[in-house]
Amino acid sequence: MARHMKVVVIGYGTAGLTAAGFAHKFSREAEVIALEERHYAVYHPCSIPDVISGKVKAWSDIVEDVYKSPRFKVLTSMKVTGIDASNQRVYGINLASNSRFSIEYDKLILATGSRPLRLEGIPGSELAGIFCVKNVEDGMELHRKALNSRKVVVIGAGPLGIEVSVALKTMGLKVSLIELMPTILPGKVDRDLAIAIMNHMSSKGIEVLTNNKVVEFRGKGNYVEKVLTEESEIDTDFVVLCVGVRPNVDLATKMGLKLGPLGGIKVDRKMRTSIENIFAAGDCAEVWDAITGKPAMSFLANACYQQGRVAGINAVGGDETYRGTLFSWAVSTEYFNLGGVGLTSERARHEGFNAFSLKLKAHYKPHFYPDSKEIVVKVIVDASTLRILGAQIMGEINISYILNFFALAILRGLSVYDLVKMEQVYVPNLIGLPDPVFKVLEAIIRRARAQIR
Amino acid sequence: MARHMKVVVIGYGTAGLTAAGFAHKFSREAEVIALEERHYAVYHPCSIPDVISGKVKAWSDIVEDVYKSPRFKVLTSMKVTGIDASNQRVYGINLASNSRFSIEYDKLILATGSRPLRLEGIPGSELAGIFCVKNVEDGMELHRKALNSRKVVVIGAGPLGIEVSVALKTMGLKVSLIELMPTILPGKVDRDLAIAIMNHMSSKGIEVLTNNKVVEFRGKGNYVEKVLTEESEIDTDFVVLCVGVRPNVDLATKMGLKLGPLGGIKVDRKMRTSIENIFAAGDCAEVWDAITGKPAMSFLANACYQQGRVAGINAVGGDETYRGTLFSWAVSTEYFNLGGVGLTSERARHEGFNAFSLKLKAHYKPHFYPDSKEIVVKVIVDASTLRILGAQIMGEINISYILNFFALAILRGLSVYDLVKMEQVYVPNLIGLPDPVFKVLEAIIRRARAQIR
Repeated sequence: MARHMKVVVIGYGTAGLTAAGFAHKFSREAEVIALEERHYAVYHPCSIPDVISGKVKAWSDIVEDVYKSPRFKVLTSMKVTGIDASNQRVYGINLASNSRFSIEYDKLILATGSRPLRLEGIPGSELAGIFCVKNVEDGMELHRKALNSRKVVVIGAGPLGIEVSVALKTMGLKVSLIELMPTILPGKVDRDLAIAIMNHMSSKGIEVLTNNKVVEFRGKGNYVEKVLTEESEIDTDFVVLCVGVRPNVDLATKMGLKLGPLGGIKVDRKMRTSIENIFAAGDCAEVWDAITGKPAMSFLANACYQQGRVAGINAVGGDETYRGTLFSWAVSTEYFNLGGVGLTSERARHEGFNAFSLKLKAHYKPHFYPDSKEIVVKVIVDASTLRILGAQIMGEINISYILNFFALAILRGLSVYDLVKMEQVYVPNLIGLPDPVFKVLEAIIRRARAQIR
Repeated sequence: MARHMKVVVIGYGTAGLTAAGFAHKFSREAEVIALEERHYAVYHPCSIPDVISGKVKAWSDIVEDVYKSPRFKVLTSMKVTGIDASNQRVYGINLASNSRFSIEYDKLILATGSRPLRLEGIPGSELAGIFCVKNVEDGMELHRKALNSRKVVVIGAGPLGIEVSVALKTMGLKVSLIELMPTILPGKVDRDLAIAIMNHMSSKGIEVLTNNKVVEFRGKGNYVEKVLTEESEIDTDFVVLCVGVRPNVDLATKMGLKLGPLGGIKVDRKMRTSIENIFAAGDCAEVWDAITGKPAMSFLANACYQQGRVAGINAVGGDETYRGTLFSWAVSTEYFNLGGVGLTSERARHEGFNAFSLKLKAHYKPHFYPDSKEIVVKVIVDASTLRILGAQIMGEINISYILNFFALAILRGLSVYDLVKMEQVYVPNLIGLPDPVFKVLEAIIRRARAQIR
């Protein structure tokens, strides 16, 4: 009897489930086994703020059943404790039965994800009432606490911190959002947009404190009741930490896989690690910026998806190539939608580009439609070639495919000149002619012409 | 004193106003004069169904003031009656003052548009109560009539006929929509989607009669009261004709400009006509299909925009090239949004492509969001290369940038393999991962792999 090729995936977050799914769909012969430490397999971490805000009705909604087939298994409560690369075996403990297991593999995909940073160096960080937003249990616990609280401090004004802050505000809490850097969404949007969003959040009653370093948590007994920054003391009922994640490379380090300069598992363009037959994908993998080629940790589900796709296909004999991350990200809150792709102006200049950017606020569909909304479009280009380097979009409409449009343009190295030749779709109840995006592009061309003169 | 270069534009619809605008913005020296026969300059023809449905509140909303500057003039009520190409002069009558005028030009742009077809060959077509939907007066008159009517026959189930039918239905009228061809939206969508839309319209109470040829209009006195087709007789209070347009080439013919095989003014890739210093753009110009290169009349505002852009820039010394039309179109009604770009399956096969298509219905954002909607995505590819040839999208969400995404992919000659490498934006309250578009693309790849085996 012919033995199937056996692909073992460790971790069933976005990268793991995508890798497992593509390996399964791409090969009719391979047997795919995914091992997940959680007692549930699939959940939607990015939807946690939406359960808190009530957009999604129940915590059970964001936990899903898993696809099953004779050649595809997801085993939960399976904690992998070691990998023997020379014998191609994975060892671990079944947390449900408290028994040991070992599984042979032909190809192994590490998708061990990341762990939230907990500000361990700061006095009081061990106090109760300091929550992270990683898994469903975190979300439920935080939500239960919020239902019985009046005020909260959220630390870290990245995409997650902003979504959590708005969600808790819509629950009726007094929200203070603290950010270490001079503006919110550092590295994600340019200063001008960051200030506009910050003002918008302030107008909704969220206290946004930038340039503020948290120096201590103080508690009543062992429960947090005060956050001290370099500048102020804030009374609070609980704290939410959204200060980022670090790659989970415990297994990788233990078995001697090479790490990259940023601390993730080093992978090549095929998502292969430094040891044969072992791939890595997702938050645990160190990849590179698609535009600059420099090492990068993406920590975003969409990048995990692409990496999982490449690792999964290649594990079963395909030949896919990962293109690097575009850092496409977005935030959706009760008050606004916001997203970006590619480089910010600041990062573009820091990377040595002669970057030029233009921002415009305009009606997405004609102004005489009563439900027409204005959106803000900012486009960052290389000043000499007008190659698109980045874009940032803000508005109350669904901005997702505007961002995908720019992602495609950046991935293909297109310039503003290429884009403006395109026949845009037009139907006035949906989109204007030209729409705000093409208005910005034409304005960039006029500006470039004016500078040539 | 140096004389400015004088650009005269005849017609101030989408092509004319775009050409005039780009000529003005592109050159700091040129003087731009646009001549428009209407007594108002700018209006939004594509919004007429939305005023009828009440989405736009007033007819005056869709008429706009015109931009003015010392080097930019739009003269209304100016009917051009002749062009003397050897002396580079335009002649005509000022309809407001009933006086003659003549204007010299250095460059001339013909944007004389189109005229709606009125089924002149059919008995009774001269009866009162048979409306077209071209200018604001048409819309107002039709709307007034509809307010005092109970039933209407709409003839022609293209995008306009569908929007008008739904608008009149939402006003509470009994609507019968008659189409000559076997399915609605002929040439715009594939048969499967056409049938789905037809069923949806029927479920809303619109009677859709395909494969039906109108053979006579009968009247009470001189006012229409009955439409006879080869199959049936339909009592009606009035009729709306949406059976297409023909290019307005009166001036062009008179002065001997070459026409193309489809009856439009022949233009080259620079939008130049057969006579020096004369450009043409918009509904009066015969262009070509961007994918097949074959002669085409686009008759869509977005194509007029691109053509006007190229003509306007080139008229003042620029060097833009028109890429041909992608036939990007869309319809937005109370019941659904719908649009397409590129070739349908049928046309692709007719043009000799080994076309393969796949259609999928899926939630745009995850199903567990209570406001999540399903959309239908159909993608047409060349079976061997998987190059994107066309796409059709239907749903209750704003589909505009999904269509633009495909327009860009088609314009750049990209394949499904190129697109699936892209890092899509993901934020679950806006869009799923993968979204329906990327689900179709992956399904096409799997199907292609299965066929290779």
